[in-house]
Amino acid sequence: MAEPAVHPVDPKAPELATVDVLTVLQALSDPVRLEIVRQLAVCDLGANGLMCGQIAIPVSKSTGSHHLKTLHQAGITLELQQGVCKYISLRRGELDERFPGLLDSVLSASPAPAAS
Amino acid sequence: MAEPAVHPVDPKAPELATVDVLTVLQALSDPVRLEIVRQLAVCDLGANGLMCGQIAIPVSKSTGSHHLKTLHQAGITLELQQGVCKYISLRRGELDERFPGLLDSVLSASPAPAAS
Repeated sequence: MAEPAVHPVDPKAPELATVDVLTVLQALSDPVRLEIVRQLAVCDLGANGLMCGQIAIPVSKSTGSHHLKTLHQAGITLELQQGVCKYISLRRGELDERFPGLLDSVLSASPAPAAS
Repeated sequence: MAEPAVHPVDPKAPELATVDVLTVLQALSDPVRLEIVRQLAVCDLGANGLMCGQIAIPVSKSTGSHHLKTLHQAGITLELQQGVCKYISLRRGELDERFPGLLDSVLSASPAPAAS
């Protein structure tokens, strides 16, 4: 049986079974969002993830918030509010189960060499 | 050593080593283009691939051409002009080498159930 629709840690996060691969591809196909996902993937700071302010993104706060919201709505991240801090984490295990190999292949892709 | 920059079959196709994963994600994150890729993946008609007109896409001819161009420029397809026919094929082996697991994970993703 699938997990219940409401995520135990983040009730606003979508159930991944209801998320289409197109939604995930669209969310990942932006340089800022992909950079956020890379940072979340390498900074495994335990259960809570990274605090919003710990994610280094070269955009304004409002643009950054928009990107974080897109990742959250696509089922890629969890958000956990604790007091005044919001923690963001990657739904790595759940994503690997829903879309086997997708995140690995994207995160392990070598960058294209800069055009000469 | 990498393959030479000019593709032997399709000189206008980009060398995949120069293609970034973001470019491929952006190309795949459109429902029409993903449908084209799915059709190319299942219809392995030999070396030439599918003729343009054999690809069933629910958009106008000009929109379809735009999508085919996007896939070609992202390194996802090869185009081979033979007389009045243009054949489109998926660069499956090359893509699997450049981005291991990416195409498999996207093509094997189960669709999300329709919202109830």
